[in-house]
Order: sequence, then structure tokens, then C-alpha cells
Amino acid sequence: MSAPLPSEKALVPFVSVENMMRLVHHIGVETMLVELTDVIEADFRRWELFDKTPRVASHSREGVIELMPTSDGEIYSFKYVNGHPKNMGQGLQTVTAFGLLAEVSTGYPVLLTEMTLLTALRTAATSAMAARHLAPKGARTMAIIGNGAQAEFQALAMKAVLGTDHVRLYDIDPLATEKAARNLAGFGLTVTACTTPEAAIEGAQIITTCTADKQYATILTDNMVGGGIHINAIGGDCPGKTELHRDILLRADTFVEYPPQTRIEGEIQQMDADYPVTELWKVVSGEAQGRRDAGQITLFDSVGFATEDFSALRYVREKLKQNRFYQELDIIADPDDPRDLFGMLQRAR
Amino acid sequence: MSAPLPSEKALVPFVSVENMMRLVHHIGVETMLVELTDVIEADFRRWELFDKTPRVASHSREGVIELMPTSDGEIYSFKYVNGHPKNMGQGLQTVTAFGLLAEVSTGYPVLLTEMTLLTALRTAATSAMAARHLAPKGARTMAIIGNGAQAEFQALAMKAVLGTDHVRLYDIDPLATEKAARNLAGFGLTVTACTTPEAAIEGAQIITTCTADKQYATILTDNMVGGGIHINAIGGDCPGKTELHRDILLRADTFVEYPPQTRIEGEIQQMDADYPVTELWKVVSGEAQGRRDAGQITLFDSVGFATEDFSALRYVREKLKQNRFYQELDIIADPDDPRDLFGMLQRAR
Repeated sequence: MSAPLPSEKALVPFVSVENMMRLVHHIGVETMLVELTDVIEADFRRWELFDKTPRVASHSREGVIELMPTSDGEIYSFKYVNGHPKNMGQGLQTVTAFGLLAEVSTGYPVLLTEMTLLTALRTAATSAMAARHLAPKGARTMAIIGNGAQAEFQALAMKAVLGTDHVRLYDIDPLATEKAARNLAGFGLTVTACTTPEAAIEGAQIITTCTADKQYATILTDNMVGGGIHINAIGGDCPGKTELHRDILLRADTFVEYPPQTRIEGEIQQMDADYPVTELWKVVSGEAQGRRDAGQITLFDSVGFATEDFSALRYVREKLKQNRFYQELDIIADPDDPRDLFGMLQRAR
Repeated sequence: MSAPLPSEKALVPFVSVENMMRLVHHIGVETMLVELTDVIEADFRRWELFDKTPRVASHSREGVIELMPTSDGEIYSFKYVNGHPKNMGQGLQTVTAFGLLAEVSTGYPVLLTEMTLLTALRTAATSAMAARHLAPKGARTMAIIGNGAQAEFQALAMKAVLGTDHVRLYDIDPLATEKAARNLAGFGLTVTACTTPEAAIEGAQIITTCTADKQYATILTDNMVGGGIHINAIGGDCPGKTELHRDILLRADTFVEYPPQTRIEGEIQQMDADYPVTELWKVVSGEAQGRRDAGQITLFDSVGFATEDFSALRYVREKLKQNRFYQELDIIADPDDPRDLFGMLQRAR
């Protein structure tokens, strides 16, 4: 005898990598980046509503595995994400992720999805949201130092949201730069491949650093960075991993997502605990100033925060109402009588 | 053009509720309870190796959603689990769960599985493991107060591991008792349905309390409990939720999983912070004494700990090597060149 079919409540929509790719192409990658930027910003505006906690990290010599939960009181989300810089040498992703949404009122999951792609998209969208408030007005040229898995998403988000039309690429490995330049062809961007970081940042109003080494590194030194620049520092995102020389931080005005997390994981782990930062949600909601003047150096010390995943997951859930880019997973045991879990097991015999 | 097939590394075995039921029946529920008891005990013996952290809980008025991570340095696990006592009124499970194993060295998930059933099994197995060290020798009769989703698993684990052959049931709702008695028919147990808790505990050497109310309750009062008893307290497992009168705790020797968690969530949340407890892993590994004498009251103040899920998940993973009770989920984005996430997306167009 086969098991009775699970009830509707027992089935959780699951978005595979393949379905996520279908969804992205159905919406269009640039449109999706713009829409993600808007939903992330909308949730930053109601920042104070969210349950916020630094991520729960399990560190090992090779990398880190993290759980990032949050909730707005109605919907709960968490993301599982790893960071293993040495994975690349074995042909594996440095960062992989999946995420979940659940109803707070019942605890029942309502969405499970791949988040490797979705994280790249939401990270780029968050960068664009920050740049919208912090980059010099009319910025047209961005530099991307580190041309790995994040690079193209960053380039397209800045183009779609801010209107940048020139991207200058540099990576320690020229093959990575070549790959990014190839992938960005056909999007209407002028792409310049550079052989030094100094060349890459020439004329750029936005400098994005997204390298992957798990170590203190100095991707940008102080004398490389002039005034009137917005730095979008993506890669310094866990303890022991930074990209900027501390002297840059002394000249910059620094904006962060959630200070208790950024002080541990971000570029500002190099600084004293009282190094002044501005919370991005205050800029977004008008409580604090973003860019003050044209000569200022602004720094978004991005580490990634749980609310950004929350926003991205809710966005995907909304989109699935119109499209069937998911399968249903029988992951919740749901007997007719909730107390009769054992009876359900017996009847499946 | 369709997307290229994901590589082997991108596919994560997923055990649905239906496949978990198949696996349980394939192994046999009593055999599985015995084997789970042994793997949980084996991991308790190497307790000090594990990364231990109290669970990460998100509380709301209606219930709680928790993440329970742990690692032995080679394998990482976490469980998502909710506790919503009012769910039953809506025909939903009070507790649902799913869990994941990942390789510490790469951060890649290697197993995703339903854990509503698996949690009921591992909770019962943990109870049996504790009772093996704490219950009076030759215990034949157990009482179960609270005949909900956990009850039958508890009865069968004690039978399979300790050899109890008589179970006495009581629930505030006679229909729950009827359900449990019906489900337990045919397992070679003498089952007695009782109409009061006092009647249920008559002659029992093991008393298991597994009620679901999220409130301070007094399922057992002091005068109900004589000497020579082992109490297995399952239901007092989150802040504000207890089952035993504190006077019982004053007479009992109390054994716990992980004191920092149990002092917040267990029966002993009623007691001062210095109320003496013995860690179960020390009993299992011979560093501390279990039952001392025949007249003693022993109490296992069970709240459930992440290592128990780790053990159960590893057990399931081992079993899947011989059986195909799983499907493969395309949850990890895995481009040929790990830096070429965007290229993978473009090629799927």
C-alpha cells in the first residue's frame, strides 16, 4: 500500500538552481536587479521592525558556515551560506547558499530556494541601493577589483540602478577579467580590461572591491584613492578578511548595515570600536545624510545582512504567484490528526 | 536552449516525508530506535569534540522557530524546528522540522531531510539512552502522560532498548489516549488506558511526561512521585513551559544534555542557577554516576540538543548508501568555472 498523498500544507515550494535561472531570465536580469534594489530599500525603511541578530557562524580552518535568521514578526527567514575561499581550487563555489521563508504564526515553511544566484543578485542590489544614496551624482564609471562570481552582477546592478555606462575591470588573474569582460558584452556597457588596480580605478567614481581571499589584504592603498569617490567594499566580510588599507578608512565616511556585525566582519574590524559609522537604514529613511559633498570619500562597508535575504526571498515568493518556476517538496509531515504522527507512519507501511 | 545538467556536486540528496517513512519501515521502527539510541550514545561519548551553542530561537506570541547547529569538525549539521502549541487547533503539527548535513571542509550540503518524523524518533531514542543509565534495573512498566505525537515513539523506544513491556497512558483528552493505544496494538506491549494521571503512574518505574502546552503546568505534583522512579520529562522544553512541580526537583537527581540550554528551557528553569545537575555525557562516558540506588528519583530533564540531530542525520546518511530512499535536489549552483556564476546563468538562457 502506498502512502496517502501529503496535504497541501505539507508541500513547500522549492526553487532549484535551474528554476531560479528561468525566473531571472523570465523577469530579465537588469529588471530583477532594479526590483530587488527597491524591495531591499523598502525593508531598510522599516529596519526597526526586524528581529536582528549577528549571523551564527561556525568557523573552521578552511572556511565558515553561517546561518542568518531574521523576522519582521509575520514572516521569518534564514539563509544557510558558506564561505570557503579554497573551494575554487577544487572547482567548487566559494560561496553557496540556500534560504527559507516561514510563517511566524505557524512555523510552517512556505518557500525553500537556492540562494547562490539569489545572493549574488541581492548583494549587487544592496550595493546599488547604497550607491544610489552615496555615490557622486552622475557617476558614469565604475571599477571592479576582483572579477570572480560577483563581478558581473555588480556591474549590471550599478548600470541598471544608477546608469553607469563604463566598467573597468582588474583581477590578479587575467583569466577572471577576460571571463567578466566576455560575460558583460552585449549589455550596452563600455568594458575596459586593466592589468593593474591603479589603471582600473582611473576615472572611476565608484570602486567596487570583491576579492575572495580569506586574509587581511590591501586591495586599495591610501594613495590610490582620491576625493569624490564611492567605495563599495564587498569582499571584506568575515573576521580576518579585509581589502582596504586602514588609512583609507580614516579619510572616508563609512556606512554600514548592522554595526554589531560589521565591526566583527567588515573593513572596520581594523579600527577601534568607536570608529564612527552611519547606519545605511538611517540614510535610506532620511534620518541621516548620505553623500554630503562632491569631494567626500564614501565607503559602504558591506558584509551582507539577513534582512537583504529576507527581502529577496519575499520577492521570489511574490514572483512565484504568477509563474510555476518551482517544484513542491514533501518536507513537512502532516497527518490528518496532528497528534497522530505515528499513525501516519503506520498507514504508510 | 535548456540549461546544462547540474554536476554531481550540485545535487543534494533529499529525504521527503514519504521516503523517511519508507526508510523507517525498511529498517523496522524498533530496530531503528535501537540503532539511533546507539549512535546518539556514541556521539555523547565524544561530547567534548562538538561545537556546542544554545539554539538560536526566534520567539513570537504563537510559538518559536529555532535553528540548532553543531559540528564535530568534519561534519556540520543544523535543524530548523518550530514549536507552536496552538497549531493543533488548526489541524497543523505542533512541531515540524527539517535538517541538513554539510561538509565542514567545503561548506557543501550533503543531505537535506524532513525531520518531523526523525525528531520524534531521535527524541525517543535519547530518552531510551538516558533511561538505560538512569532507570531502575529491570524496569518493566512505564507511564506516558501526554499522548500526542511523541507518545508511541517513546513507548517503543523504551520497549526496544530497555525491555519494558507494559505502558500506562493518560492524556487530558481521552481521544489522544485512545489513538495511542490503538497505534500501539500489535507491538507486544500491554497497554493500559487510564483516566487520571494518578492511575497512569501506578506501578510505573519510568514516567514520561510529554505534553504540549506552552505554559507553566504541573503534570506531576510532589505527592504523586514515590522513590525508585525515573522521570523522563520531555515536554518542558522552552522558556515558560514546564511540567513538574518544583518540589519534585528538590528530591530528584537531575540529568541534562547541555546545562546552558537546559537552565533556560528545561524543568530546571524553575530553580536557582546553581541547582545541581549532572551532564548526561559524563554518565554515558563513565565520568559520572547514573542511578546510585534503587530508591533514588532520577530525572532526565530533556530539552533536545543539536548533537542528537547530528547523530540522527549521520545515521540516515549512512543508511542511504544502501537504499535509494531519496531524490536529488538541484540546490547548489555549480558552474564549470566556479568564478563564472554569471556565465552559467547566461548559458541557461
